[in-house]
Amino acid sequence: METRLDDDAAQPAGGELAARLGALLGAQQVFAGDAVPERYCRDWSGDYAGVPLAVIRPANADEVAAALRLCAAAGVGVIPQGGHTGLVGGGTADAGHRQVVLSLERMNRIRSVDPLGMSMVVEAGCVLQAVKDAADECGYLFPLALGAQGSCQIGGNLSTNAGGVNVLRYGMMRNLVLGVEAVLPDGRVFSDLRALRKNNTGLDLKQLFIGAEGTLGVVTAATLKLFPKPRWVETLWLSAGSVDAIMAIYGRLQREGGELLSAFELITAPCLALALELDPNPQAWRALAAHPAHALIEFSASGGPDLGPWVGTLVADLLDAGLALDGLHAQSGAQAAAMWRIRERMVEAQQRRGKHLRTDVSVPIAAMAELVARFEAAAAAALPGAQPLSYGHVGDGNAHLNVLPPPGLDAAAAADWIPRLTGIVNELVDDYGGSISAEHGIGLSKRAAFEARVPAVQRELMERIKTAFDPAALLSPERILPRTGGQPR
Amino acid sequence: METRLDDDAAQPAGGELAARLGALLGAQQVFAGDAVPERYCRDWSGDYAGVPLAVIRPANADEVAAALRLCAAAGVGVIPQGGHTGLVGGGTADAGHRQVVLSLERMNRIRSVDPLGMSMVVEAGCVLQAVKDAADECGYLFPLALGAQGSCQIGGNLSTNAGGVNVLRYGMMRNLVLGVEAVLPDGRVFSDLRALRKNNTGLDLKQLFIGAEGTLGVVTAATLKLFPKPRWVETLWLSAGSVDAIMAIYGRLQREGGELLSAFELITAPCLALALELDPNPQAWRALAAHPAHALIEFSASGGPDLGPWVGTLVADLLDAGLALDGLHAQSGAQAAAMWRIRERMVEAQQRRGKHLRTDVSVPIAAMAELVARFEAAAAAALPGAQPLSYGHVGDGNAHLNVLPPPGLDAAAAADWIPRLTGIVNELVDDYGGSISAEHGIGLSKRAAFEARVPAVQRELMERIKTAFDPAALLSPERILPRTGGQPR
Repeated sequence: METRLDDDAAQPAGGELAARLGALLGAQQVFAGDAVPERYCRDWSGDYAGVPLAVIRPANADEVAAALRLCAAAGVGVIPQGGHTGLVGGGTADAGHRQVVLSLERMNRIRSVDPLGMSMVVEAGCVLQAVKDAADECGYLFPLALGAQGSCQIGGNLSTNAGGVNVLRYGMMRNLVLGVEAVLPDGRVFSDLRALRKNNTGLDLKQLFIGAEGTLGVVTAATLKLFPKPRWVETLWLSAGSVDAIMAIYGRLQREGGELLSAFELITAPCLALALELDPNPQAWRALAAHPAHALIEFSASGGPDLGPWVGTLVADLLDAGLALDGLHAQSGAQAAAMWRIRERMVEAQQRRGKHLRTDVSVPIAAMAELVARFEAAAAAALPGAQPLSYGHVGDGNAHLNVLPPPGLDAAAAADWIPRLTGIVNELVDDYGGSISAEHGIGLSKRAAFEARVPAVQRELMERIKTAFDPAALLSPERILPRTGGQPR
Repeated sequence: METRLDDDAAQPAGGELAARLGALLGAQQVFAGDAVPERYCRDWSGDYAGVPLAVIRPANADEVAAALRLCAAAGVGVIPQGGHTGLVGGGTADAGHRQVVLSLERMNRIRSVDPLGMSMVVEAGCVLQAVKDAADECGYLFPLALGAQGSCQIGGNLSTNAGGVNVLRYGMMRNLVLGVEAVLPDGRVFSDLRALRKNNTGLDLKQLFIGAEGTLGVVTAATLKLFPKPRWVETLWLSAGSVDAIMAIYGRLQREGGELLSAFELITAPCLALALELDPNPQAWRALAAHPAHALIEFSASGGPDLGPWVGTLVADLLDAGLALDGLHAQSGAQAAAMWRIRERMVEAQQRRGKHLRTDVSVPIAAMAELVARFEAAAAAALPGAQPLSYGHVGDGNAHLNVLPPPGLDAAAAADWIPRLTGIVNELVDDYGGSISAEHGIGLSKRAAFEARVPAVQRELMERIKTAFDPAALLSPERILPRTGGQPR
């Protein structure tokens, strides 16, 4: 089915398109050929690198629209690019100078903040941390929180329906978006940035752009929900004898104060040990690190009475009941930050180990403990000496079942162990009716696994919707599904 | 454009279809001609009545699918019908025996409840109150709460993205749905009832069925989110000198404990007076009723410390500051229930007055007080002697700006005052970039006002999506937009 242009055919037409884009946007805002800086070609994971026909940096939605019209006229695909922190290959060009990378980085204005309405309008290229800071300065919280928040951009967060550590309380990005502005592939602008909490007038089209991974339109701005800042935050580290015990603790906390729970992160012993490799004072964690499973827990409230004494009693009850074997209840912001630093170092330490298996799956919450146990056994059997690293956002049923390869892996095993173990994890997830991509999306890397699982009805509806928005399949070509729109490119 | 079949032409073909449907579903589950009971023909408001070709009552999704295939083969439109409590004419057939009404009422099983995962799977015909009761029996809360909850059904709640009094805390129906099962017009079943909190695998198609008013598929089941039951509930009635003062109280409460606010209802003096007409002991409210504006407020928490003392201090502060002029802090469930009964009687009393203007609009929260003031002035000018009734869900920016006509309205005025005042309200809402349908939907009654406002891009995308799901325009024909799908019918 695929009829790719070869490089020789694409290059001359590409040079002409780049020149037209330069005339439109200004020469400094268009990079082509050897002038494309490396940073637009490679994502954070290092797993994806591509060679775009050109990189363009429009300043506003009108420029995006005009640029998309030029690309459409030339029949050239466009990859919207945010902060390069995606993990599925969605934001980098393919090889072969075939696509234009459209960077939103210059569209980074915070347009407005409405305190009484608790909302803000921001451009797609705003870095998440800058949005969080702006909300904070106005006395509010924008709750999306993830490791990449210093680099990732709102447009990418929206296009991937980002998750993170506060989903338990505040929901995914879908739940945080009141309005969307997006440019369609034909250059028309879909704009509904109204800060309305309720609006039942026809199909809620903005829902389609959320999580579409740039396949339906280029998101250029969003209206976001703000929340009252937490006034009371209680952070706990609880250690237990098993993942089962951690799940029992979760069940109990959820029954006794579920609405006040803002994070409940499972961290298994090997994850803690790995994080402590980067800790300047690992001795402080020695007693806790002896236990097989841990939970990093946060309760918070924006008002009402102090939660501290109540949380103290709760912890004492869990220890008395033998559900928790040890624990820390942070008595200062610094102590709480130290606990969260473990969570961050766990990710950083994996990254330092180089190529490893990274998964992002979800199952019904009741299946979490069994999933982890089966994963660890299966990983050990499939790749002796490998180090399974199980952690996740328990309240969301979201597990990251990762694996570090054994040292000195032979070349044959090194070549295929990641896809092999990915397949094993995905099949385990299938057993529980779970999702093979809880928060990272499909992009390129999960496309085959997704295609093998998506029911025919859903697939056809997705293809028809793609065709309704992008009949020539110009936007984020072949992301999510390979054959959508009029023709592959 | 419209090419309606006349009755004579429709009847014979209709009789044949009814016979086939009877053979499929059993004769007792199909009513046709004079045998159609009145209750399937008329909605709660009494504003919409139709004469269906037949009424069918399938027992499960397979029967729905088979029935839709028969209707599609006959080229006959289908109106999915829930509890008849919609307010925009979405759930009743048109006149002229042209459509089949598909009642979901027999599909009323609660399929399962998952306590740890806090979710339940229910069929579309479940009455909302039954779902709330089932959740309650398991120790959880299903928070959707609206006046019609004793009659309305989950399928209708989902298809209209229902709102109600607890949206401030728990969101609209969209926010309460984890999974959807729906039958497409060609009889294929879209099924994703997995109770996954996170799932980013391709376009989130279920979002399209939510709020589609039955135009894309017949919703047959849903997976719903449950929440911890509130342990502490504090209910307040505060009276103030103006709607402005009520909005200032809202701003303050939201800053000081916004996350604990679960309801904040504006009730203006005429609404309270009207409600008290149905109250057995209106004297008890005499002192409060002297004030121009009121708020019915609820704080709640599922756990943590007792909210009572904190709320008591908050109320004292509001009275000291002169923002609230008087108030009641319920000291028992019975006192709280009495306050909520005022809210319900306000709606009931309007209904008893017969034909009146009912609107459902939303604006940015900061515009609420000005909108109410302009509405009341405009209504008085447009129809002297009329009684404006302004109330709403303040935290959602959602106002019901209703009007009772003056007694003894002459025939000419009686004929057109409702559309005339609706137009005035909608134009006020336009000034604030608001929505002409915050929670009720478009159906038939708001179609012209919606068409006049929907931007061309949005309209075209909605039409394309309709065509993608329902190319022959068989489902809920002409609801939301008149010309969608292959041909009008």
